Amino acid sequence: MIEVVILGAGNVASHLFKAFSKMKNLKVIQVYNHRKASLKDFDKNTATTTKINELKPAHFYILALKDDSIQEIAKQIGDKNGIVLHTSGAVGLDVLEGLTNFGVFYPLQTFSKEKSVNFSEIPICIEANSEENLKRIKELALKISADVREINSAQRKALHLAAVFVNNFSNHLYSMGAEICREHEVEFNILQPLIKETASKVENLTPQSAQTGPALREDQKTINAHLALLPEHKKNIYKLLTQSIQELHGKKL
Amino acid sequence: MIEVVILGAGNVASHLFKAFSKMKNLKVIQVYNHRKASLKDFDKNTATTTKINELKPAHFYILALKDDSIQEIAKQIGDKNGIVLHTSGAVGLDVLEGLTNFGVFYPLQTFSKEKSVNFSEIPICIEANSEENLKRIKELALKISADVREINSAQRKALHLAAVFVNNFSNHLYSMGAEICREHEVEFNILQPLIKETASKVENLTPQSAQTGPALREDQKTINAHLALLPEHKKNIYKLLTQSIQELHGKKL
Repeated sequence: MIEVVILGAGNVASHLFKAFSKMKNLKVIQVYNHRKASLKDFDKNTATTTKINELKPAHFYILALKDDSIQEIAKQIGDKNGIVLHTSGAVGLDVLEGLTNFGVFYPLQTFSKEKSVNFSEIPICIEANSEENLKRIKELALKISADVREINSAQRKALHLAAVFVNNFSNHLYSMGAEICREHEVEFNILQPLIKETASKVENLTPQSAQTGPALREDQKTINAHLALLPEHKKNIYKLLTQSIQELHGKKL
Repeated sequence: MIEVVILGAGNVASHLFKAFSKMKNLKVIQVYNHRKASLKDFDKNTATTTKINELKPAHFYILALKDDSIQEIAKQIGDKNGIVLHTSGAVGLDVLEGLTNFGVFYPLQTFSKEKSVNFSEIPICIEANSEENLKRIKELALKISADVREINSAQRKALHLAAVFVNNFSNHLYSMGAEICREHEVEFNILQPLIKETASKVENLTPQSAQTGPALREDQKTINAHLALLPEHKKNIYKLLTQSIQELHGKKL
């Protein structure tokens, strides 16, 4: 039986808790958070604590915390037999230096309280301070996901950045699409099949070969018509992305 | 039996041909294109022609043509009993003025030669020069899609613009994600579950409520770390979209 303690009570902690709880030979034996109120969703199903010095002995301590808290909480945990892991894309392995057994367990996905996810398809990026620990972390990760990859800190930071482009920024483009719909009294849901297909295309094509539209085909007439419809702020975004598409695809500007 | 003539041999024409061919009580009786070579994928399955004056009598003439060719080809067709339709998001109904029966049949989706689509989920935006023609166009559209909507020319142009944001520009963000992966020797497919989930989230949440990330939470430390990793050109896009997210969500800048 692998025993896990989760530190944190946010989206990543909640989703990890749910995923681990479904697995055999694996048990979340405790959840820590400094605020008692945040533990109420957990304490029906496992032991909880608000005190670091009450942490139980475990094989893994998973720090699903805000980036800025990781180092401080890791120090407070102090040295344990168990492996101390953080779950952040943006933080290096080195913030855990000083401990004996440590590593990273970064699930590359966007988590919301409102939406359940299928963990088995989520890539888990792992890193460790030793080969032996890497092996043990991999064993843990494979319990909940079929896609476990060794990714170093520099690569993980780049992935976190790439995720901002494909997730945060794409979602913001959806928001702009929704605004344009609202201004013209069209329901946003009319765009959903297109959004889904856009995402689905890059499962089989590279994004570069999936590119279409007026920027790619240098359709200046349509580009001008679009710019004329846009307020200043969206116009700047339209221009910059159009230019960027044309640069990437080697079109003359 | 509804009889249809398709003019054009590009992606929209090909996908419409396939979708119509599967339906009962509906037949594509002819495909026109000015270049004979482009008709080779059609002429096993239906009559083809390269001459406008050889068009057969039909209930519908669907102009799946480049925006700039629509008006000219429509003039050459001249007046027919059948309804002349164009399939463009960016072109108004008015380019078909002068004919007796005309309208628009705009499938809001991205089409590639390489990828088949499920037409039944594609919203079809229709418009017509009379109530009677609108009724007949709706009947045609409902043969291949469950989502048929009356959309006027101004709304359609706005939708075409919104589609550039959610499709062309999102796909370009995927390209930038892919470039970042390549530069750090990580396979792009690691981002696919995230891309899929990002698109899937807005089926149930508004894009505004689905927004996450450093821009939204004003995490300047992460934003600065990301900017430091980016070349000038991507840095400008990152800054502009970060600022735009913060403006939309009413954060101070």
